Amino acid sequence: METIVIALGGNALLNPSGRQSYAEGQRNMARVARSIVSIARGHRVVVTHGNGTQVGDELVRNISSKGEIDPLPLYAMTAETQGTIGSEIALALGREARLRGIGMRVGCVLTHVVVSPRDPSFSRPAKPIGPTMALGELKRYRMGGMGIAKSKGGYRLTVASPRPREILELDAIRDLSRSGIVVACGGGGVPVVRRGSSLQGAAAVIDKDSTTRLLANSLGAGTMLILTDAGYVYADYPKNKWAITEMPASSMKRFADRFEAGSIRPKVEAAVEFVENGGKEARIGNLFELDGIMKGRSGTRVY
Amino acid sequence: METIVIALGGNALLNPSGRQSYAEGQRNMARVARSIVSIARGHRVVVTHGNGTQVGDELVRNISSKGEIDPLPLYAMTAETQGTIGSEIALALGREARLRGIGMRVGCVLTHVVVSPRDPSFSRPAKPIGPTMALGELKRYRMGGMGIAKSKGGYRLTVASPRPREILELDAIRDLSRSGIVVACGGGGVPVVRRGSSLQGAAAVIDKDSTTRLLANSLGAGTMLILTDAGYVYADYPKNKWAITEMPASSMKRFADRFEAGSIRPKVEAAVEFVENGGKEARIGNLFELDGIMKGRSGTRVY
Repeated sequence: METIVIALGGNALLNPSGRQSYAEGQRNMARVARSIVSIARGHRVVVTHGNGTQVGDELVRNISSKGEIDPLPLYAMTAETQGTIGSEIALALGREARLRGIGMRVGCVLTHVVVSPRDPSFSRPAKPIGPTMALGELKRYRMGGMGIAKSKGGYRLTVASPRPREILELDAIRDLSRSGIVVACGGGGVPVVRRGSSLQGAAAVIDKDSTTRLLANSLGAGTMLILTDAGYVYADYPKNKWAITEMPASSMKRFADRFEAGSIRPKVEAAVEFVENGGKEARIGNLFELDGIMKGRSGTRVY
Repeated sequence: METIVIALGGNALLNPSGRQSYAEGQRNMARVARSIVSIARGHRVVVTHGNGTQVGDELVRNISSKGEIDPLPLYAMTAETQGTIGSEIALALGREARLRGIGMRVGCVLTHVVVSPRDPSFSRPAKPIGPTMALGELKRYRMGGMGIAKSKGGYRLTVASPRPREILELDAIRDLSRSGIVVACGGGGVPVVRRGSSLQGAAAVIDKDSTTRLLANSLGAGTMLILTDAGYVYADYPKNKWAITEMPASSMKRFADRFEAGSIRPKVEAAVEFVENGGKEARIGNLFELDGIMKGRSGTRVY
């Protein structure tokens, strides 16, 4: 049975500090669960998810209360979001399977991902996390290893986003995928670096699309789906909007600088790398159009 | 191969707001990991853990920042602690296995536990969580379904602690335990109640010893170890200190009211229930004397 790896992203996914409430996020997740359970009837399915908004929320929570309780280290905040988001995804998938009378198991595996301590991103932290604030306010939230970058209307904190090199729980994920849907690699995985025999948490947040790519190739998945707010990959966004419906990986790679950095570009890079490493095809599209994406009626196909 | 279920509790386990720092908690965990990995060479091992301090920390973090970010529901705070504590336990066990050159897998499974919406504890929330505070301050932190109880030097919030009825991820835990150490049921599990086909998070924190008991019997474990700060189960504590080294479950049950409520009594009840439901023996003892407990030189044996 073919393995499909599905990355859930976009603001619709459980976003308490964003536009919608936690309950609305749950309703959105329920819609997506319907499509995922349909796919899981004919495939092995592993689901990953981002934590862009949520890890920023945890940072604010940890720092706001630091007079009362020591803040957790940054990597532990990704572990927190694996718990909260993983739980909601697992509950939504389980509910959907029961509604249809399918005895399908769902399991969420806490995932650690090894990164190199010499990854260049540690000296140039560039991944923005948390809300946009005034510079003075922002400094209050800054932890070790974080930078500051300008953003629309103020400033945001930035963290290192090193390249994922090894998924520690890969075997467990593979084993469980044989008997049900697995949720794993949340927020790109809890980043750890090797120090002798030890693995220690790293002050970083790994890009979830990059980890999803590594997972998909490691599992020998044929298809990788990256779901987000956008319906297609657009070139020259936001000035022009060339929607790409399908394109060979080699061409996507050549046009890399025409995809918006920090938003769609990491997804395109993950898609290209997936195909270059043996994947059959990657599809990038809207979280709520998963059925259409599977049928080739929506989203961008990279092959 | 016999299955042993080990519950990690006590303040020594990663306690950022308690006496020791997060780093000290990690060092303590490393000590315990040595003993657990030794046991895992001859047994299937599943490790559970409490979250007494940590879920209170999350409550304070969530409420302190509620002007900036909507607080998570209470059940999601247990999910957060499954992430953070589970991650540290998994890293410590993995490190220890590598130090000894053992290719042993470690996997942490996010766990949901079904409770009844009619559990009497929902109308009388009695499990204290979070720090002791003045009454006025405490009210700020109170969420739906919480009560207030007197405590030494002030007041504490209380939450429902319903009886665990079903571990949703039981099959996944069993499968993974065949090829490595599994960490599961953290903080008693994320509590959920059935509503039709749905499972919804419940405003509660399940007693981790009670869930550990259910897990141990469901896996058909021969031995259950409950590790805590105390070296033995004492009767009439703190007035007199009768250390019990071993006792049949039937006698333990008869003496139930001589064990301090809210601290050692839930552990004794879990031990008794484990034996009554087919377990060979339960041992209750100090977190750092696991080797001695396994050899019968320390701790209380209930059989």
